[in-house]
Amino acid sequence: MIFKQLFETDSSTYTYLLACPKSREAILIDPVFSTVERDLQVLRDRDLKLVATLETHVHADHLSGGKRLKQRTGSQIMCPAMLALPCADVGIQEGQPIVVGSIELHPLFTPGHTDHHHAYLFESPMHKLLFTGDALLIDACGRTDFQSGNADDLYNSIHNKFFSLPDETLVYPAHDYEQRHVSSIAQEKARNPRLGKGRPKEDFVALMDGLDLPYPRKMAFAVPGNEACGSCPENVPPELRGPCAASDQG
Amino acid sequence: MIFKQLFETDSSTYTYLLACPKSREAILIDPVFSTVERDLQVLRDRDLKLVATLETHVHADHLSGGKRLKQRTGSQIMCPAMLALPCADVGIQEGQPIVVGSIELHPLFTPGHTDHHHAYLFESPMHKLLFTGDALLIDACGRTDFQSGNADDLYNSIHNKFFSLPDETLVYPAHDYEQRHVSSIAQEKARNPRLGKGRPKEDFVALMDGLDLPYPRKMAFAVPGNEACGSCPENVPPELRGPCAASDQG
Repeated sequence: MIFKQLFETDSSTYTYLLACPKSREAILIDPVFSTVERDLQVLRDRDLKLVATLETHVHADHLSGGKRLKQRTGSQIMCPAMLALPCADVGIQEGQPIVVGSIELHPLFTPGHTDHHHAYLFESPMHKLLFTGDALLIDACGRTDFQSGNADDLYNSIHNKFFSLPDETLVYPAHDYEQRHVSSIAQEKARNPRLGKGRPKEDFVALMDGLDLPYPRKMAFAVPGNEACGSCPENVPPELRGPCAASDQG
Repeated sequence: MIFKQLFETDSSTYTYLLACPKSREAILIDPVFSTVERDLQVLRDRDLKLVATLETHVHADHLSGGKRLKQRTGSQIMCPAMLALPCADVGIQEGQPIVVGSIELHPLFTPGHTDHHHAYLFESPMHKLLFTGDALLIDACGRTDFQSGNADDLYNSIHNKFFSLPDETLVYPAHDYEQRHVSSIAQEKARNPRLGKGRPKEDFVALMDGLDLPYPRKMAFAVPGNEACGSCPENVPPELRGPCAASDQG
């Protein structure tokens, strides 16, 4: 598999490129609207054809690049089926692998950050790669205080779907705010301050429910924009228009 | 490739098991004397035959399991050739890959922590795995104040041999003291406080030369013991005998 970890600085989002070295078919997990041109260049540089974009959830902190990439490449938009988004081409769900050339990704239904969140597991004979989205972050986890988030659910998702994987499974999160790039299941079990070290569920729920975080600054337009697969809503405040000011906006 | 990251708690040493899934041949990088029985069990559990142990350098903080494993399994002892250790079966050097079944490891001569230190690079179509020994640690690096260590050399080794590898190359160090398990070249370039962020060589050398660390508590017997490939020297102080008290000592 061809693999590349890409970064969008404004929302500290990791986008993951996975591609089949034989068929040259590629998929992007959680692409960002503002880095679509960068992503297209990365694809061209490697002679890859984007066949799909895949969302872990409806993001509140950035606008997805899904629709824009579809306009440019014809890629299919894949989202959790339970969202039933009219703009999506493929609804994904646990138990139904996503196949791109020789690559197989296994969706894992992992609610808690949002009620529809899915992670994706790639298994090779050598390594398992777990794309944890906003459920599990390095030394952290996604917040649970909006979009039907639920700390109890997130605890169950991480313990039952992630911490049951082999220790060496690589953890690739959707965000990092301190320039960390990769972790492992062993590492998160051992030292994640919110979820590791056998921390009990009631402690975790109390911690998450008491965080009292401000809402993400782009949330008011990012959520409706991403429910339209990465369209710029017309009511974006000027100071947040950013990439939506581009000529080829969706 | 079969891959397992093993940990020895007293010296916080990572031992790495790499094995060919077809031939069932295995190699252990930096095995530890006190965890030989654990390592043998890991091999048995996976129906693997240990064909070699491979040292990154002569360790000062723990006794190698190389000789003891050879006694138990017939495995060859591989060490940097420039050491010319009479106890070694194979002298390794950069430019001469180590082949174990379908696995190829590329030695990288990386002096600085010691004058004979080698790292090992495994390349698959998907991922590169870099076993950095004591040269590069996660958010840190090996010390340079004994065993012909040299901060200038370590800076060159890390910048020229490691930081020139692709961003996604996984960094597997020989130690971690904070339960971190894995990093990447991108991560170390971005945030290693000693070597990342474009820190100039003169800053690094001044920092390393000013660390003023106490010597490792096992150094007086570990270094001669490891120059004999993991034999217990007869003059081990009682409080440090530990694994050397075992009946099957080398």
